[in-house]
Amino acid sequence: MTDGSPLTRLEAFSDAIFAIAATLLVLEIRVPQVVPNAPVSELWSRLADLWPSYLAFVLSFGTILVMWVNHHNSIRMLCRTSKPFLYANGLLLLLVTFIPFPTALLARYIDTPFRAVATVCYAGYAVITNGAFLVWGAAMEAPVYLGRPELTRDHIARLNRQTIAGMAVYLGTAVISWWLPVVGLGLLVALWIFWVMLSIGPAGGA
Amino acid sequence: MTDGSPLTRLEAFSDAIFAIAATLLVLEIRVPQVVPNAPVSELWSRLADLWPSYLAFVLSFGTILVMWVNHHNSIRMLCRTSKPFLYANGLLLLLVTFIPFPTALLARYIDTPFRAVATVCYAGYAVITNGAFLVWGAAMEAPVYLGRPELTRDHIARLNRQTIAGMAVYLGTAVISWWLPVVGLGLLVALWIFWVMLSIGPAGGA
Amino acid sequence: MTDGSPLTRLEAFSDAIFAIAATLLVLEIRVPQVVPNAPVSELWSRLADLWPSYLAFVLSFGTILVMWVNHHNSIRMLCRTSKPFLYANGLLLLLVTFIPFPTALLARYIDTPFRAVATVCYAGYAVITNGAFLVWGAAMEAPVYLGRPELTRDHIARLNRQTIAGMAVYLGTAVISWWLPVVGLGLLVALWIFWVMLSIGPAGGA
Amino acid sequence: MTDGSPLTRLEAFSDAIFAIAATLLVLEIRVPQVVPNAPVSELWSRLADLWPSYLAFVLSFGTILVMWVNHHNSIRMLCRTSKPFLYANGLLLLLVTFIPFPTALLARYIDTPFRAVATVCYAGYAVITNGAFLVWGAAMEAPVYLGRPELTRDHIARLNRQTIAGMAVYLGTAVISWWLPVVGLGLLVALWIFWVMLSIGPAGGA
Repeated sequence: MTDGSPLTRLEAFSDAIFAIAATLLVLEIRVPQVVPNAPVSELWSRLADLWPSYLAFVLSFGTILVMWVNHHNSIRMLCRTSKPFLYANGLLLLLVTFIPFPTALLARYIDTPFRAVATVCYAGYAVITNGAFLVWGAAMEAPVYLGRPELTRDHIARLNRQTIAGMAVYLGTAVISWWLPVVGLGLLVALWIFWVMLSIGPAGGA
Repeated sequence: MTDGSPLTRLEAFSDAIFAIAATLLVLEIRVPQVVPNAPVSELWSRLADLWPSYLAFVLSFGTILVMWVNHHNSIRMLCRTSKPFLYANGLLLLLVTFIPFPTALLARYIDTPFRAVATVCYAGYAVITNGAFLVWGAAMEAPVYLGRPELTRDHIARLNRQTIAGMAVYLGTAVISWWLPVVGLGLLVALWIFWVMLSIGPAGGA
Repeated sequence: MTDGSPLTRLEAFSDAIFAIAATLLVLEIRVPQVVPNAPVSELWSRLADLWPSYLAFVLSFGTILVMWVNHHNSIRMLCRTSKPFLYANGLLLLLVTFIPFPTALLARYIDTPFRAVATVCYAGYAVITNGAFLVWGAAMEAPVYLGRPELTRDHIARLNRQTIAGMAVYLGTAVISWWLPVVGLGLLVALWIFWVMLSIGPAGGA
Repeated sequence: MTDGSPLTRLEAFSDAIFAIAATLLVLEIRVPQVVPNAPVSELWSRLADLWPSYLAFVLSFGTILVMWVNHHNSIRMLCRTSKPFLYANGLLLLLVTFIPFPTALLARYIDTPFRAVATVCYAGYAVITNGAFLVWGAAMEAPVYLGRPELTRDHIARLNRQTIAGMAVYLGTAVISWWLPVVGLGLLVALWIFWVMLSIGPAGGA
């Protein structure tokens, strides 16, 4: 019942989940099988054909990284935890562990006529994940475990605004992807770059 | 031989096992393969057909989360460990790492005539896991490593009562599943919601 | 350059490797595929046919657990580390990560005429792992990082004696397995029980 | 906003990624399938035929280990972190998680006419990884989080020199591998032994 211990284990458990989800992504990139007497250029072109897998891998790894940085910066403002927060965090982790599935779907169908389905699912997954971050932020607001109330409330309010904005833009991306999947994919990449910039940005010296 | 160190590593090792078992569950959800000239709706309906996989994923993730919260709340009451407890904990972790197998079995056979086998196995797995929690609680009772004897004894007694009740209801669920697998599945879901409620509940402010 | 930090990370890295290797073992146990109109008993008998997988899973999980307990009890006697020790530990971890392969080999071939090959490989793997523990113990002996010299030297000497005995008995098991693979398998199980007993045993109150 | 906490989580997250990437490598080594009535020697020779997998496994495990030791020795010189450094570290971890792919490529094609492609890719991967280490070292130089400025600057300068040398030799290896893949492979193995020697070497008593 030391105050520090629960957060340490919460962080350790969350870090492990983020790390494993990030690492499992590579299992979806399969080594291409080439027949023995094919020309060498065949293997090069088969490796190049894997670009959807590489793109999905980098996109999802980046998503996990941005979530981890946000998670990290929020958790360190708390001084203790509560059971509802453990479960809200669990809901978030459930979605983190799920990321290899929409990633594999994107990698599999991005250069096929089914790309709209894959892009809508990926953007839809981002909407749901932002929703889980909202629940998480709400569970964090319970005053009993606010370490530095003034800092944390501002931080949570900013996080919540970002998350609501995130839900809106990903919802828009999902809608656009339905008719224009290539534009939707471009938006997914652009949004990812934007989140990284934002989190490095003005408040980045933390 | 600092008192803190052994528990730190026990927690780190256990957390890693819980986290990995939770994350491996997603590997069982395979991207559906659709022929190139099928209509787009085909992929949507194939994704919807994966509902047993999604259900099994959420159910098993939740089970791991509840076990982790209980593990977490029990371990933090100890002030040191013992070798028998390391092995009792190992037995528990053995069952945690095994969870992807009954989960995959459930996902594979839940909408087939074999659903009774899958549900009985899943409920049977829950009975055995509750049994391992009993052994674990017993190994924890050895007075030499009780940090706050009065608190810990009450906590262990409550944990043991819950665990014995858990064994009974899962045994009942296994029996019911044999004849009424759909009812058994409903019970598994209901029990999972009940455990979450229980652990958030009155004593949840910890 | 705080004294504690290097060991913390060494432990964290090692724990993660032990935990992941233990958890990956379950991926080798595949859900049996049954044709839709088979009788329900067919799935039960197919699940029973997986006994070599269950046995190999429990055996290898137990092996990892015994190695982890020994690793854990040795590391906590050190007060700092050295680069040669980091690499000796790395060699040990290399063998820990390799364990899913001999395990899968055992599970695949134990009830076939090839069981001698699988059992010899498994026992041979145990010989090599014990050899890595010897290198590890030797790297640990460098006096510069001995925290409590008198305790640690005794502990290392005992560990080395156990390890050399382990190499001898596993070498014997490998030889016997060549002609009598079933006896070899029985020896592997018996030895595993013996290691657990030994480590819980007289010195188990630590 | 305690100074210690951010580095602790950065280390924990990085350690988990290194550990998981190292452990996933073994999944690429598949148990050979032998027909039931083949002679026992068939399984032995099939196991021997897996030598490219064993070699790639050891090579990549060793690469991860050397990277981990360098990461470990650099991080412990910092006293706090910054968001740009979190992302530079993320870039490095992205490449660490990717290592199972070039490893599987090497294992698959090293004894086929396509070995040049596999060796060039593996050496090219090493060039890119060294580049990421350069970015990482640069992000580490931001004076705000230098714990022991004089030590850290020397350490970073040495790390950067090693990394630039590494990029040059791996680039050379990639070029040579294009025409002489076997020589390229020999260089990869020789370089790996060299890095281990170098990091154990004169400055090894740390």
